[in-house]
Amino acid sequence: MQTIDGSYIYEFSSANKPINSVKLNETFSIKTLDCYGGQLKSESDLRADFPNLKINPATGPIYIENIEKGDTISIDIKRIELNDQGVMATGPDTGILGDYITESQTKILPITDGCALLNNQIKIPINKMIGVIGVAPEDHAIPCSTPDIHGGNMDTKDITEGSTLHLPVFHEGGLLALGDLHAAMGDGELDGTGIEIGGEVTLQIKKNDNFKLKTPIVETDTHFMVIASAEAFNDAVRQGMLNAISLLQHKHQIAFADAYRLLSAKGDLRISQLVNPKVTVRMALPKTVLVNL
Amino acid sequence: MQTIDGSYIYEFSSANKPINSVKLNETFSIKTLDCYGGQLKSESDLRADFPNLKINPATGPIYIENIEKGDTISIDIKRIELNDQGVMATGPDTGILGDYITESQTKILPITDGCALLNNQIKIPINKMIGVIGVAPEDHAIPCSTPDIHGGNMDTKDITEGSTLHLPVFHEGGLLALGDLHAAMGDGELDGTGIEIGGEVTLQIKKNDNFKLKTPIVETDTHFMVIASAEAFNDAVRQGMLNAISLLQHKHQIAFADAYRLLSAKGDLRISQLVNPKVTVRMALPKTVLVNL
Repeated sequence: MQTIDGSYIYEFSSANKPINSVKLNETFSIKTLDCYGGQLKSESDLRADFPNLKINPATGPIYIENIEKGDTISIDIKRIELNDQGVMATGPDTGILGDYITESQTKILPITDGCALLNNQIKIPINKMIGVIGVAPEDHAIPCSTPDIHGGNMDTKDITEGSTLHLPVFHEGGLLALGDLHAAMGDGELDGTGIEIGGEVTLQIKKNDNFKLKTPIVETDTHFMVIASAEAFNDAVRQGMLNAISLLQHKHQIAFADAYRLLSAKGDLRISQLVNPKVTVRMALPKTVLVNL
Repeated sequence: MQTIDGSYIYEFSSANKPINSVKLNETFSIKTLDCYGGQLKSESDLRADFPNLKINPATGPIYIENIEKGDTISIDIKRIELNDQGVMATGPDTGILGDYITESQTKILPITDGCALLNNQIKIPINKMIGVIGVAPEDHAIPCSTPDIHGGNMDTKDITEGSTLHLPVFHEGGLLALGDLHAAMGDGELDGTGIEIGGEVTLQIKKNDNFKLKTPIVETDTHFMVIASAEAFNDAVRQGMLNAISLLQHKHQIAFADAYRLLSAKGDLRISQLVNPKVTVRMALPKTVLVNL
């Protein structure tokens, strides 16, 4: 199995040269650094002491053979392996309650027995996930810290082992990159971080001829989740709803108002993160009302 | 078993006279009207034709014996039985995408085989829940359409069969009332309605001597969810986070910053509704990190 490693981007862009290529349906793996580029190694490494730290390195970009602009790719996330310690760096102004925090702190959380250990005291059950994953956007470059319709820093905890991420493609070969794994993160990423960690992700990419996507969708065993990012929360919500309503209309051949009702009755508006340059929400549609896209 | 029925309030207030009393640990039931007071009986009954319709009747208030101001009550929701048809009334300006809706419509959804049927075509699996439930607030009256720390129109889908709602009490006897059942509703209540329906709810109320609550908490098999409502979304989020952090600090005897990290790593910020006079969110804390309150 091919393992891709050692080259990182800090912005998604069609100007980035691919470091490797993969075939459709090939199983391969990607090694990733944590969002701090692996620079915060102990609790004495404070984020404030690294003012020029480039954050959110994504390993890639990877050229996907036989993929063209306008295609949709479906990325099966086969396996996520984590390194043996995670890190959380908080300080004044990090996250939603940053105004309550007076001190910069770095916490190292060893990973053991399926848990991350905070202060050698509190066992936090892990929920592995991929924070940053995407393709080259249509025109200008987008920093890896920012989510958008190309993917990027979506920080969506359902992008995890066993799920499938469907992405639109804007350039030949797609130019996939990923990084920013979390050992655990709750919906919202409320203090500005998950349990940040490096690791290795095993993937398989398929071409999806069933539909043309405008925006990322993550598929779990039970749900299709339409992902939407925008600077304002309300704009992300409306964008996610409109795209979900389109799917429901297409599936059921119903009027807008009926799809709107169906969404209200069974769609869950979930929050992915509220702390990146754009916020991300997802409209979760249970497969019980939307069996196939 | 005592069944309470036939008297409705449209605002929670200590000025309302109780219609009945219940004992602690007594199992009793409450019959409720739908949020339209049962007035929209067919698809030709448009909401716009009832300009003076009083919405969100709550059955009660009920005096709970041996409950004082400052107590916490724990309401076990034993059973929710639904009537045989639900209703959704939408029109211009209802819900988050009301600007896309040009026409007032009422849809009647028969309930059969565990599903609500939209347009005699789409089966919507039911998820029963209580939209309005609360006690008399501390000082001024609060309309049943508005959620706040006394409860009210929290529209939180985890307030359902099998869960327990913990509420602070502001007046002797509590003065409980409830209504606004939904046959189904997704997180957000995005078009402004669930599948609105009348029915009967079976409850048992206990006095909770373990903790003094400032705000409602709903407890499921897996989570404690701290409920917060405010006019601005961001204020509701911060309020919910601060109350959840207090719980985590109390449980683990940890500093604010550590509880903040724990919340970010394992707490899910969920949206209850975005369409009432105040929006409601809930901070879901898995029992794996917060075994007992």
